[in-house]
Amino acid sequence: MSTDTPHDAREQLIELAAEFYDQFAEGDIPEMTLPTRTKSNIEYDEDSQVWVYGDRTSTRSANSVRGARKLLKAIYTIEFLADQLGEDRSSTLRELYYLSESWDNEEAQFNDQDESNQLIEDLEIVSEVTREDFHMRPEESGATIMGPLELREQTRRGERVIHCQEDVGEGGYQIPNNPDTIEFLENDADFVLCVETGGMRDRLVENGFDEEYNVIVVHLKGQPARATRRITKRLHDELDLPVTVFTDCDPWSYRIYGSVAYGSIKSAHLSEYLATPQAQFVGIQPEDIVEYDLPTDPLSDSDVNALENELEDPRFQTDYWEEQIELQLEIGKKAEQQALASRGLDFVTETYLPERLEAMDVL
Amino acid sequence: MSTDTPHDAREQLIELAAEFYDQFAEGDIPEMTLPTRTKSNIEYDEDSQVWVYGDRTSTRSANSVRGARKLLKAIYTIEFLADQLGEDRSSTLRELYYLSESWDNEEAQFNDQDESNQLIEDLEIVSEVTREDFHMRPEESGATIMGPLELREQTRRGERVIHCQEDVGEGGYQIPNNPDTIEFLENDADFVLCVETGGMRDRLVENGFDEEYNVIVVHLKGQPARATRRITKRLHDELDLPVTVFTDCDPWSYRIYGSVAYGSIKSAHLSEYLATPQAQFVGIQPEDIVEYDLPTDPLSDSDVNALENELEDPRFQTDYWEEQIELQLEIGKKAEQQALASRGLDFVTETYLPERLEAMDVL
Repeated sequence: MSTDTPHDAREQLIELAAEFYDQFAEGDIPEMTLPTRTKSNIEYDEDSQVWVYGDRTSTRSANSVRGARKLLKAIYTIEFLADQLGEDRSSTLRELYYLSESWDNEEAQFNDQDESNQLIEDLEIVSEVTREDFHMRPEESGATIMGPLELREQTRRGERVIHCQEDVGEGGYQIPNNPDTIEFLENDADFVLCVETGGMRDRLVENGFDEEYNVIVVHLKGQPARATRRITKRLHDELDLPVTVFTDCDPWSYRIYGSVAYGSIKSAHLSEYLATPQAQFVGIQPEDIVEYDLPTDPLSDSDVNALENELEDPRFQTDYWEEQIELQLEIGKKAEQQALASRGLDFVTETYLPERLEAMDVL
Repeated sequence: MSTDTPHDAREQLIELAAEFYDQFAEGDIPEMTLPTRTKSNIEYDEDSQVWVYGDRTSTRSANSVRGARKLLKAIYTIEFLADQLGEDRSSTLRELYYLSESWDNEEAQFNDQDESNQLIEDLEIVSEVTREDFHMRPEESGATIMGPLELREQTRRGERVIHCQEDVGEGGYQIPNNPDTIEFLENDADFVLCVETGGMRDRLVENGFDEEYNVIVVHLKGQPARATRRITKRLHDELDLPVTVFTDCDPWSYRIYGSVAYGSIKSAHLSEYLATPQAQFVGIQPEDIVEYDLPTDPLSDSDVNALENELEDPRFQTDYWEEQIELQLEIGKKAEQQALASRGLDFVTETYLPERLEAMDVL
């Protein structure tokens, strides 16, 4: 599932519609089979090192009114996407939902946006084409990059060659919705550091961490957009750079790391396209709270709950994570990245990160 | 309250500390007087056309332990800010909160971030220096700009000259935390269009609206960051460009418009620095829901409540807003910007915006 051209994506969609046609022609009731998308049906794939769907499947069949309506909506959506690709245009998930109101068959219109979002994911799975290659843009915008990297972005207005330190302001380079329009040119980078919060991203840039350690700083902006995860994976795979992830010390931040490294349940079909299984967690680790005596907040009930769920989550079933999560439950505390400022504004770039990255063999 | 140099900002802070010193020296109990920051104490200033604080004030005096502690925290913060400016460094509001844990006097440490945020706002008001000039960075990052504008940004790493169409990718130019580091060079723009959602911003860029109509598209990204409001104001004042605001059709979006045009109660002291009173509301207007028969959602109880509050809000007491808000309460509906897609993906750029902007005399 990689960078298909609009033409390929269109072919694949039309092939899908042709399958329904053939089912009809043979007198069969049309149906579409999908992997079951629940936590119990994701499993670790040894080869690709990411979590993928297991063998269990569910079938959408036209043998009920409900199922027939779902397939009708799929057909209308395929037609819209094929047209969009034919005209080399794009649209957002929300636009698709609203656009359906203009469709001539009222039964084909979506009841809510969850329904249209879900259908696009289904089509991604069965066609093995990513949403980006359908030219569906996300609502969420990607984040920014700062570091010793020159790239070429293919925009609708022509090519742009941009160096992500020299040709950008302090805000950095804004990742486009579809980062597969980017080609990496030159780089002088030793590794990639993905950072959860804007405050910490700005601290690293102000302290010149990207220059001193030749690091490409990718701002995750909380739970990272697909565009951000995709470009992170490409930086790893194509430039052969180690990827590290630096977040707050709480269960929600571990999920952020998890979505960069292992993919998510919701998009397990995209793990090979979005996940970077070699990504390493820098911290803040629960043991850092103890070691550096960081300012903390107590764990809330929902934090404790989330940590306990993580202990059950196959993505976190390693000795490292079990030890850290159990320690955190024991001390009952969480901390933010910026809590490192209690040791001074330079502590993170002069002490914490160099120590952690050396311990991890990245430096 | 404009672009002071670090030196000026530092002077003003030290002057504030000197006042406390003088009060002590004269045997007076030190105190600090601030305007009362409630809705009933903001009023319309005819000259500047923005809402500013009225005459009511509150006093922080050291005649109680609580008041004395507040002033102690102010003094420590002033010292930190003066040092920061002396070293030409910067920090985030959250870092300040954590940093206070390293202060030698425990009584001066902040109990929570609300307290430190509030103090920084107090210091802005009494010193008449903006937070940006204290070199306090926000957590929230600014949004992006796309349009026929060339600018020069003064970064810590030297000057960058960037054209906001030709030198950026499809993501646009990322506004830095302090947009007063920007100098506008050349422009070929007829007006500014501030857009609430990323999906609509991307639609306008894909459809080439910025090129066809010579418009600088500023993405607001929901409730706009200070950096976004500041640069919008500067585009208006320095380049003499009409500013228009394009949002969803609901009470929360009218507040977004309000914060661009009139400033907010929380930051009425910054209205002259951040607000663009000449900014015009493009829509989506409640009457557009009727006229264009847009897909809608019903108003929730909290929507109705917010609309009723807006009818009481001095910023919305104009014939136009009263008519629109009363219409919306009557029809009981709200709509999103992207609902225009129900008329096709080009409707917004070929029909809706040209019609509205002509009616408003912007085109």
